[in-house]
Amino acid sequence: MDIFEKLRRDRGPIGEHAARAHGYFSFPKLEGEIGARMKFRGKEKIVWSLNNYLGLANHPQVREADAAAAKEFGLASPMGARMMSGNTTYHEHLENELSAFIKKDATILLNYGYQGILSAIDALCNRRDIIIYDAECHACIIDGLRLHPGYRYVFKHNDIADCEKQLRRAREMAQKTGGGLLLITEGVFGMAGDQGKLKEIAALKPQYEFRLLVDDAHGFGTMGKTGAGTGEEQGIQDQIDLYFSTFAKSMASIGAFMSGEKEIINFLRYNMRSQIFAKSLPLPIVIGNIKRLELLRTQPVLKEKLWENVARLQHGLIERGFDVGSTNSPVTPIYLKGDIPEATAMCLDLREYYNIFCSIVVYPVIPRGQIIYRLIPTAAHTYDDITITLNAFSDAKQKLDSMKYNVAEIPLV
Amino acid sequence: MDIFEKLRRDRGPIGEHAARAHGYFSFPKLEGEIGARMKFRGKEKIVWSLNNYLGLANHPQVREADAAAAKEFGLASPMGARMMSGNTTYHEHLENELSAFIKKDATILLNYGYQGILSAIDALCNRRDIIIYDAECHACIIDGLRLHPGYRYVFKHNDIADCEKQLRRAREMAQKTGGGLLLITEGVFGMAGDQGKLKEIAALKPQYEFRLLVDDAHGFGTMGKTGAGTGEEQGIQDQIDLYFSTFAKSMASIGAFMSGEKEIINFLRYNMRSQIFAKSLPLPIVIGNIKRLELLRTQPVLKEKLWENVARLQHGLIERGFDVGSTNSPVTPIYLKGDIPEATAMCLDLREYYNIFCSIVVYPVIPRGQIIYRLIPTAAHTYDDITITLNAFSDAKQKLDSMKYNVAEIPLV
Repeated sequence: MDIFEKLRRDRGPIGEHAARAHGYFSFPKLEGEIGARMKFRGKEKIVWSLNNYLGLANHPQVREADAAAAKEFGLASPMGARMMSGNTTYHEHLENELSAFIKKDATILLNYGYQGILSAIDALCNRRDIIIYDAECHACIIDGLRLHPGYRYVFKHNDIADCEKQLRRAREMAQKTGGGLLLITEGVFGMAGDQGKLKEIAALKPQYEFRLLVDDAHGFGTMGKTGAGTGEEQGIQDQIDLYFSTFAKSMASIGAFMSGEKEIINFLRYNMRSQIFAKSLPLPIVIGNIKRLELLRTQPVLKEKLWENVARLQHGLIERGFDVGSTNSPVTPIYLKGDIPEATAMCLDLREYYNIFCSIVVYPVIPRGQIIYRLIPTAAHTYDDITITLNAFSDAKQKLDSMKYNVAEIPLV
Repeated sequence: MDIFEKLRRDRGPIGEHAARAHGYFSFPKLEGEIGARMKFRGKEKIVWSLNNYLGLANHPQVREADAAAAKEFGLASPMGARMMSGNTTYHEHLENELSAFIKKDATILLNYGYQGILSAIDALCNRRDIIIYDAECHACIIDGLRLHPGYRYVFKHNDIADCEKQLRRAREMAQKTGGGLLLITEGVFGMAGDQGKLKEIAALKPQYEFRLLVDDAHGFGTMGKTGAGTGEEQGIQDQIDLYFSTFAKSMASIGAFMSGEKEIINFLRYNMRSQIFAKSLPLPIVIGNIKRLELLRTQPVLKEKLWENVARLQHGLIERGFDVGSTNSPVTPIYLKGDIPEATAMCLDLREYYNIFCSIVVYPVIPRGQIIYRLIPTAAHTYDDITITLNAFSDAKQKLDSMKYNVAEIPLV
C-alpha cells in the first residue's frame, strides 16, 4: 500500500471539492489594502471574512510603525530561537506591556499561536495530569490535547452541568494518578460567537481545584471595558490562571502570547518545545505589535466603532428575521437551511451580484442541511457597508426560501 | 495536587539553571545588525550562533526588499488562513519559484516550519500507516510523530543496517494494518552536522516501497551544486518524495515550505490543520523570501564564501587537535570533555576575555562529561574572525586541559 496512492484517492472533506472550489470558495485572492472593501477578481467587494476587528491592519500609525521597523531591522532579525540567540529588549518590552494591560504578572511571547498553545499544553501537563476541555475548542488546542499522554475529559460546549460532571470524574481520576487538573476553554468561540462561560467555570474552582487556561483569540481587544478580553468582560480576569491570545485577530499581526504568574511563565520559557526549538518572533513584528497594543489601549474609539457596527449588523439581521444563534461577541453567524448546492449558489450570488464577500461553513464541518455564514464586523466597516449587506442577505434569503438556488448544476467560477 | 505547584518545583532540564543562566547563557541579547560581529552587553563579539549561512539576513538587496514590502503592504496583510482569505499571487509565485529551483512539481508555503511539518506528518498518515524515522530527527518531527496514531519505528541515527531492519519490521506490520510506509530523516542534522544518508536510504526504496520525507532545514541553500540541498548534493533529489525546509536558516526569514508531486501537495493544502486553521504567512515575509531565493540562486559567490569559511574553520580546528566529529556540512561541532561547571567557565572565558560568542550544549541534552560547542560559519564571517576564534579555542582548550576551568564557583553574570 502506497501512502500517496491513498492520498490521491481520498482528498479529505474540503479537498474533495477543490477541483470546483479552488481559487473561488477556497484559496480566494483578496487584493488591495486590508479593509471593508477589497478587490476579488478585479471587482470591489464588501468583505466580512477578516478578523481585523479594530481596523488596525491598515491604521496609518500601524502602517508607519511596520514600515519603519522593517526598514530599521529588516525581517530577518533576530536569528535563532529566543532562548539561544533570539531575545531582544523589544520582546521583553512587549511582554511587559501585555502583562500590564491584561493585569497578569508575566507574559511570554510566542512565535506563532498554533504551535504556541500546543506546546504550552504539552509543557504544562505530564501523564499524571488531567485535562478538562470544552468540546468546541479550536484545532490548536485539540492538537495540544492530542500530544497529552494522560487522561482528558471533554464537556459539552458551554454546558456547565456537564463541565462539573467531567470535573468530578477528573478529580476522581487525579486521586488515582496523583496529577493535577487543567481546564481549557475559550473566551469567545470563533464559529458561533458565544462567550465561554468563564464566570460559571471559575466559580467551580474552589470545589475542584483546577487551573484555568483561556484561549481568548477573539476576545482580546474586543471584549471588556478596556479591551483586555473576556475575563475582564465577565469580571473574572483574576480567576484565569493562564491567558492566551493570538496577535492574528484584533492585533492584525502574527505571533501570540500567554500570561500568568511569573514562575509558571518562566517555566514555559524554558520548556515549550515549539519555542525553544524554533525561531523567535521577528523584530518588526514585535515592534508593530507594540504599536498595535498602544492604539488598542489608548484609542477606545476603535472598539466603540467596532461595537456600533456589531450592534447595527446583528440587530439588522435579527429584525429581518435571520437566526444569528447565541452570539454575544462581534462574531456574527447566520444560520440557514440548505445543502451544499444551495449554499454554493447563494454564496456565488452574494459575491457576484451583490458584491458581498463572506465565508460559508457547510457539511462536513456542520451537519448536513445547515448553512452558516460567518460575518466579522470590524471598526473599518461603514454604515453603508452594513446596509448594503443587510439588503443583500434579505434578497438572497428570499431566493433561498423560494427555492431559486435549487439548481442542479451551479455555474461555478 | 496543583499543576502549578508541580511546575514551581520542577523547572525542567534547562529551566533549573535559569536563576544563574538567564540573560547570559539563555535568552542572551545580541544587538546590532545580524552578522559575524554583534554586540553583547555593549561589547562587540564574534558571533557563531546564527544560522545565517549565506549572510542574507543583512544583504543590502534583502534589506531593501524587506523594507519596501513592509512599506507597501504593512505586516498585517493578508489576514486569515490561506484557504479562507489569506492567499495572494505572491504566495503562489514563491511556491512556483521554489518548485523550479529544487526540481519538484509543486510546493506549499507553510506559515511556520515547526507547526508546518508537524501537521504535514499528521495529514499524510492515518492510523494504518507506519512511520520509520531517524533517532536524531528534530523536535518538530518528533512532535508530528507524537500525533501519529499508528505504529512508528525508530532507527539508530544514520545506521543503514538498523534502518533496513526497521523497514522490514514496518513492512511486516503494514501487511497487518493495510497501511503504507513513510520514512522521515534529515538532510543535515543540526547538532552534529552530519548529512543524513539519503542515498543509501533511497536505495532501499524499491525493496521496501516507502515514501521519503526529508527535512533539509540546514541543507537548503548550503548543500548541492546549486544550493538546492542535500538531495542534490547526494544526487538523489528525485528520490525525495517530500522535501521540506524552513526559511529560518539560509533564507534568514520565517516560514517554511514542502515540495513534492502536485496531487500530494494539493492534498496537503486542504488537510494540514496548522495551515487551514491559522494565519497565512505575511506578504512582506513572502516577498522578502522571493528576493532571498533570487539571491540564493543567482549569487553562487555567497555559497562559495560560506564553504571557504567552513573549510577554513573546520580544517583549522582539526589541525589544532580539536574533534569536530563527523560533520560534512557547515555545522561545526567541537567535542570536548568536561561537565557543566567547566563548560560554563570556559564559555564565559571565551565570551568575556576572547569576545567569542558561541552556543554550548551540555547535559542533559548530551551525556554527562561531554561539552559540545556548536559553531555556524557563514558567508558573513571574515578570515580574521576565523583566525581570532581558532586562537581563542586553542587557548581555552589548554586551560580546560590543565584544569584551569575547574572552579568550584563560577563567577557568573
